[in-house]
Amino acid sequence: MSYRIITISRQFGSGGRTIGKKLAEALGIKCYDREIIDKVAEQSGFDKNYISEKGEYVPGGVFGTMMNRWSYSGPTNEERIWQIQAAYIKDLAEKESCVIVGRCADYLLSERDDVLKVFIHADDEYRAERIVKLYGESDINPEKRLKDKDKHRAAYYQIYTDMTFGDALNYDVCLDSGRIGEDKCVDILKDIFKLG
Amino acid sequence: MSYRIITISRQFGSGGRTIGKKLAEALGIKCYDREIIDKVAEQSGFDKNYISEKGEYVPGGVFGTMMNRWSYSGPTNEERIWQIQAAYIKDLAEKESCVIVGRCADYLLSERDDVLKVFIHADDEYRAERIVKLYGESDINPEKRLKDKDKHRAAYYQIYTDMTFGDALNYDVCLDSGRIGEDKCVDILKDIFKLG
Repeated sequence: MSYRIITISRQFGSGGRTIGKKLAEALGIKCYDREIIDKVAEQSGFDKNYISEKGEYVPGGVFGTMMNRWSYSGPTNEERIWQIQAAYIKDLAEKESCVIVGRCADYLLSERDDVLKVFIHADDEYRAERIVKLYGESDINPEKRLKDKDKHRAAYYQIYTDMTFGDALNYDVCLDSGRIGEDKCVDILKDIFKLG
Repeated sequence: MSYRIITISRQFGSGGRTIGKKLAEALGIKCYDREIIDKVAEQSGFDKNYISEKGEYVPGGVFGTMMNRWSYSGPTNEERIWQIQAAYIKDLAEKESCVIVGRCADYLLSERDDVLKVFIHADDEYRAERIVKLYGESDINPEKRLKDKDKHRAAYYQIYTDMTFGDALNYDVCLDSGRIGEDKCVDILKDIFKLG
């Protein structure tokens, strides 16, 4: 088998995005993350911040009801974003070897055999420290911020893919970045990708 | 951090046991698998085959009721086996650097910081082919054999640890042996263990 694409699913604060960027750099290929939002914004007319939130998180209050709402009132904004995002990611995978961070890319590209599917996670302590360093303090304590993000991201994944976020069976490789170390994760993934 | 122990949880037929053995050999340490059964047999008086089955699988018909049964009729054979097995594994980890395959060792040693927790899995096609090669044909088709083993092993893990079998968050590293390859899995784990 020969890999062309790497998808990185990640827990909020685990450093999955940074690992994706470093990995792409090491492999001399592009890493798609915020670029996906820009593209969806361009095609949909929605604001980037709105897409950033709706394109990976289920907003509070609609857990479990979103699918029902679609069925009788036509596509919601969330579904339109999902569709544009999905088409863009599938097209991307067709065109070039790259790293794609988040946005259920593992699920969207699950029929391809050339995708190395990665999940990056870490314990709460590591992630809490990391998000305070990266994004600064906030009124809400870091543990609560993690819990909220985890809940909404897992719900988004579940609703759109009908699979459980973080189930090892959905991925080729899962790594605890807090335990293994960010750079070591990059090395392991680079090695697997190259040997493909 | 410095690792001394590697625990390998694995899906039936994924080659996790073989990876554990090869890894131990590469690291010059011992791999504990059947040896645990021998030890529990010696201490409990139960037959090895009985322990092999009860020490990792929930028998049909008692899903969800085992905990209740314990509470009013004293420890069952399963619980006695669990207790002896748990004590033996904890003792082992205290005494020597080693690889321990299965038997919820990841959970039993979760308070130790020197344990590299690994989960090995693979898709049904890979595992079905592998179990027929290893264990031969049987009246029951390989897919059904896998499904039964998966169900009973997951139930055992859930009952004794109160965690979900195969949840990436419970492990430091999860690898798809069918996709990554058995020998590459050994190399990756050896490398992580050594750099620990």
